[in-house]
Amino acid sequence: MAMLDNNAPVGVFDSGVGGLTVAREIMRQIPEERIVYFGDTARVPYGSKSKDTVIRYSRQIIRFLRTEHVKAIVIACNTASAHALETVQKESDIPIIGVINAGARTAVRATRNGKIGVIGTEGTVGSGIYTEVMKKLRQDIEVTGKSCPLFVPLVEEGLLHDSVTDEIASRYLSVLKSKYIDTLVLGCTHYPLLRSTIGRLMGEDVTLVNPAYETALELKELLKAQGLNREADAPLTGEKYQFFVSDLAEKFTDFATSILPSEVKETRKINIEEY
Amino acid sequence: MAMLDNNAPVGVFDSGVGGLTVAREIMRQIPEERIVYFGDTARVPYGSKSKDTVIRYSRQIIRFLRTEHVKAIVIACNTASAHALETVQKESDIPIIGVINAGARTAVRATRNGKIGVIGTEGTVGSGIYTEVMKKLRQDIEVTGKSCPLFVPLVEEGLLHDSVTDEIASRYLSVLKSKYIDTLVLGCTHYPLLRSTIGRLMGEDVTLVNPAYETALELKELLKAQGLNREADAPLTGEKYQFFVSDLAEKFTDFATSILPSEVKETRKINIEEY
Repeated sequence: MAMLDNNAPVGVFDSGVGGLTVAREIMRQIPEERIVYFGDTARVPYGSKSKDTVIRYSRQIIRFLRTEHVKAIVIACNTASAHALETVQKESDIPIIGVINAGARTAVRATRNGKIGVIGTEGTVGSGIYTEVMKKLRQDIEVTGKSCPLFVPLVEEGLLHDSVTDEIASRYLSVLKSKYIDTLVLGCTHYPLLRSTIGRLMGEDVTLVNPAYETALELKELLKAQGLNREADAPLTGEKYQFFVSDLAEKFTDFATSILPSEVKETRKINIEEY
Repeated sequence: MAMLDNNAPVGVFDSGVGGLTVAREIMRQIPEERIVYFGDTARVPYGSKSKDTVIRYSRQIIRFLRTEHVKAIVIACNTASAHALETVQKESDIPIIGVINAGARTAVRATRNGKIGVIGTEGTVGSGIYTEVMKKLRQDIEVTGKSCPLFVPLVEEGLLHDSVTDEIASRYLSVLKSKYIDTLVLGCTHYPLLRSTIGRLMGEDVTLVNPAYETALELKELLKAQGLNREADAPLTGEKYQFFVSDLAEKFTDFATSILPSEVKETRKINIEEY
């Protein structure tokens, strides 16, 4: 184990802006922690890319975050958690967590009839990782996965409440409705933005699980258990929250400011391929 | 000028599979030419990324194509043509052409009322390059650009003939209809796959321009003018057409086989970041 400073920041990364919903949850639940966020906006999206490529990208990002002396890392992207978490955990001497364990655990706890749905990118759903983790927690669970490739572009086009989004969502979700699931994991960080559409189509008896909340909780417990938690009154040198992207820094700053509790003053662009 | 071998292949590149429509047109019009195709499937799409990033990616790809000893390069991607062509042409000692000059020229020749529409990615339309080139050809031309960010995901989801695609297309195209354009440039290599939807919505009086045809013609004339054209009976060592991608080689092979005139036997995956 490296010598870790509990005043050091937590690294959080995603293929783009989606992971900010996880960062926001960490800011809410553990306001004393510092965060270094990286969004891979030059290579976004990850959802349709291969396991090998997503592992390579994740390794580069982790190498970058290490140069910022992070004490722990949260992979705030379902696709990267699905493809890369296991590999990068083995290579790392600092703790790394993803969003999938937290999401799976919450869903297994929430279901009454044992039938759970998972929606996500092709990479996340195709990996079968949610099913694997849930079945370890409870063997008789029945999991139905459905990839929803148009959800991210629809969200990025701003069509959160729109007849087209309704129509597409209704097609994607019909297979889940036909399985009588009572719990649905929103297995991509963009999907909570479609929560009202998805909730209306699935009906009020279906519990929607957003892994962000439970991931922040898992981080909090992990930091405490390893003595890595930051004291609220520890001296702060520099910005508490730092943001880095691989492209389009200004656009990122605007978006981050719109969804985080406080203004983002600056986002720095780096060449992630150099790491 | 480097010493060029007219038996050498032509390099063709795109952010992914879309540029295959340009490669196909080259195969049809200049069947004697050899082609090395590169699709940047690990970093696709380019349409929403910055000029700087697209220039950096294009430079890497050109460095890779040079290792394959290409005698000329076709940027078969509107976004990369818009952002990078001018820069990489200045740096290169072999001829490089894009798809935009060809598309602009065809549209200016086709219009009767001088009102032309251009649809493409945010990058292509935002660059204003089509307008610039068209106005140089004919000063009184009136150009209306409209970015259509959902078209690529809709095509990739296979919704070529679908009520959702109709609805989205009808929203995007309404501004062009209101300008009474009589010519519309399909300024993204994916869009010709939506030709029937776009044609129906615009009406039969609007001429749709696909830059691929004219780009192949421009290449043919360029090679001949520079004495670089390959003799049909020149000895062929190795494959006539070679395909490289940065991710998901098998998926690419299947897609390429489905749209090219002959079977693609193999696609090789390379790490483009190393170039």
